[in-house]
Amino acid sequence: MTDPISDTGLAARLRRPATPQYRDDQAGLGGAEPIAVYAPRDAAETAAVLRACRAEGQKLVVQGGRTGLAGGARVLPGEAVLSLERCTFAPEIDPVAATLLVGAGVTLEAAQAAARDAGLFLAADLGARGSAQIGGLIATNAGGPLALRYGTFRQQVLGLEAVLPDGRVIRRLSGLSKDNSGYDLSQLLIGSEGTLGVITRACLRLHPQPRGRRVALCALARLDDALPLLQRLRRELGPLLAACELIVEPLLSAACAARGLRHPLPGSAALVLIETAGMSPEADDAQLEDTLGALLAEAIATDAVLSQSERESATLWGLREGCSHYLFEIGPITSLDLSLPIPAIPRFVAEGAALLAQIAPDTRAHAFGHLGDGNLHYVLTGHQPEPVLRAVFALTAGMGGAITAEHGIGLDKVAFLPLCRPPDEIAAMRAIKAALDPDTLLNPGRILG
Amino acid sequence: MTDPISDTGLAARLRRPATPQYRDDQAGLGGAEPIAVYAPRDAAETAAVLRACRAEGQKLVVQGGRTGLAGGARVLPGEAVLSLERCTFAPEIDPVAATLLVGAGVTLEAAQAAARDAGLFLAADLGARGSAQIGGLIATNAGGPLALRYGTFRQQVLGLEAVLPDGRVIRRLSGLSKDNSGYDLSQLLIGSEGTLGVITRACLRLHPQPRGRRVALCALARLDDALPLLQRLRRELGPLLAACELIVEPLLSAACAARGLRHPLPGSAALVLIETAGMSPEADDAQLEDTLGALLAEAIATDAVLSQSERESATLWGLREGCSHYLFEIGPITSLDLSLPIPAIPRFVAEGAALLAQIAPDTRAHAFGHLGDGNLHYVLTGHQPEPVLRAVFALTAGMGGAITAEHGIGLDKVAFLPLCRPPDEIAAMRAIKAALDPDTLLNPGRILG
Repeated sequence: MTDPISDTGLAARLRRPATPQYRDDQAGLGGAEPIAVYAPRDAAETAAVLRACRAEGQKLVVQGGRTGLAGGARVLPGEAVLSLERCTFAPEIDPVAATLLVGAGVTLEAAQAAARDAGLFLAADLGARGSAQIGGLIATNAGGPLALRYGTFRQQVLGLEAVLPDGRVIRRLSGLSKDNSGYDLSQLLIGSEGTLGVITRACLRLHPQPRGRRVALCALARLDDALPLLQRLRRELGPLLAACELIVEPLLSAACAARGLRHPLPGSAALVLIETAGMSPEADDAQLEDTLGALLAEAIATDAVLSQSERESATLWGLREGCSHYLFEIGPITSLDLSLPIPAIPRFVAEGAALLAQIAPDTRAHAFGHLGDGNLHYVLTGHQPEPVLRAVFALTAGMGGAITAEHGIGLDKVAFLPLCRPPDEIAAMRAIKAALDPDTLLNPGRILG
Repeated sequence: MTDPISDTGLAARLRRPATPQYRDDQAGLGGAEPIAVYAPRDAAETAAVLRACRAEGQKLVVQGGRTGLAGGARVLPGEAVLSLERCTFAPEIDPVAATLLVGAGVTLEAAQAAARDAGLFLAADLGARGSAQIGGLIATNAGGPLALRYGTFRQQVLGLEAVLPDGRVIRRLSGLSKDNSGYDLSQLLIGSEGTLGVITRACLRLHPQPRGRRVALCALARLDDALPLLQRLRRELGPLLAACELIVEPLLSAACAARGLRHPLPGSAALVLIETAGMSPEADDAQLEDTLGALLAEAIATDAVLSQSERESATLWGLREGCSHYLFEIGPITSLDLSLPIPAIPRFVAEGAALLAQIAPDTRAHAFGHLGDGNLHYVLTGHQPEPVLRAVFALTAGMGGAITAEHGIGLDKVAFLPLCRPPDEIAAMRAIKAALDPDTLLNPGRILG
């Protein structure tokens, strides 16, 4: 293998050893050895790599922290890696505008810390915060539990600096929250999974730090009751409602049993974890307590536990997070992140179970996730074959859902995209891809195949 | 003139009399008589019009309520009008998902009322609510005072049904708040001013109804004090802060004098109107009062008036809105809606005045607008010639601002777009336009010229 850009003098400066971690993301299916790994430091160096690779016809896969779960960063044979790991402009805060300017290669955790040090709040979080990078989080429009209150990464982005496949640079970094001067190309790049351009810097919106939080866990007699529960929580709590997570039993019971933990609310059909976070802790607490009281009085919830301290709040969240850990420990699983119209969630759980009983009777399905966003983590035991996935995705799409809420299409869901996107829409996506990347240089085969 | 699609049988069904109101939007510069006016009822009829016009090479201008201020809906010679006025699917609310499905031709006011009747809140408002239509508001990414708290129309859209120039239909109407299944074409269409597709329906996000509001007006000794004021308001009030409007004196003084109203806080350099709206009126009021007390104690504000009733709240808002009315009454004006990095606003006001003193000494400039969004309405007396506009826009762009925050580029600002968008970015916009509308059928000459 030869370095396609070694003649340009760039290689010596930008090339990194092609160590094994560059081969795949956390989907973990194993990628090829890349032709080369380039790690530019800024937009100008990124543009130079793209121009040189374009001249040589060298295809590239763009990598951030490689914490994705859809194979989007996995190396295909013959590809070079473009890693943003050195694109680490230190976070700059503007306290008056409440904005954060940050390099694509900075981790979410470092960006969160920079905001916190300035007394502000970057309203995005997820488990991979220590290794997931800002550029990748934006390119995949990452979500997480805070998305209910603050939106996904799309809503945190005020503007991007990005290099298009032909080496052109777009740059909207002055932190304008309103700007109707032409098409918003930043918005097009968000969620395009590196197929339309390489994000090198971002200007993000910051929020005030909430003053304390309170967490409650509610037990439901029937999964259907999750719908009026959510509706009431929204109406009563408004912007205080910071998270609303669903766990369908017997998942929490199994997770508690496996770890020797006491289940705080045994015997229910489902549990809903609620977090409130606002600016007036006392008044906010009273409002949560009143709301829980009304839900219990009307038997929408059958029982509830309310945290009395930050430690108890963490314990309740630990139960929710323990469900994820438990599922990764029980052996091979197939984890789907489905998006559903919220009213369809109980029906989906019932019909999904019936479907699996028919086509994969040895498979168990576990459902949990972000109720308030309609984002269901649907975890099947075992490595599931393509026809089972296709049937579950078809059920999802038939209810108006989407086959991925947060994780994206990557390489691994390309074959299923037509289930939830009609041919007209995919044709329009292809037209945009061809317009910006006529040589299919960047992340070929991802999203559109 | 002949109807280019009369042979297809569509014309009889869809054609409307080409009465004079179809010629222009509220920019009011006077448009041409259209070749024909088509008013399809849904996406299928819209697609039929687009296909027929494409076959004939007939260019179209898309119209909603024609309340735009940038000439985007103005008819150019030889164009037909595609009006969404009959695309009026009645609003459908899903109370559990908190979504509103609505036709593009429904007015904002009717959509707001439908949400309110269901106990929910469509978090978008502006003066033209009675005639501005949902489709046009989305196509132009309209803003207004609520944008500070809830974002512009972009943030209200969960998904769109739209017809692309080739007659293909895209449709994301199931109200998913998370969906990373391919490029988000809805986001690309928002703010593209009808140049990339015709929006026929939208699924919008609804919010809980806030329980009451409170309004305060603060006097500032120096315009610079607006910056620490905003920073403190954000930090103390968080999501309670629903609006934060700036009026630079002597505008309010002049407006009050012209209408014989008492100025509540004379002798200041600028005024800031604050609205809070939350879920706990008593606690929220206490928090606003505490915050105002601190601002006065620290002399960030020199004086303040706090509404004691809904009527007083309306009176304070009336002062703000009176500034707009006053400016339209004083004779010919040139009204710019600039977007600036918030920290640059005081400097812009000072340097703008200095610039005008040099190049247009008879011109007065008035500044007011949405402080929290960096959105400055900058109103110049008189019909200003191109060089003056260019100089003001160049000053804006030089500070990292954009030449239009809310109103869009339309026809009237096309020549100025390169001041705030570099050639690389405009080239990328052109590539996308060419990919989706190779014959330049839809809204030719708008945005990109």
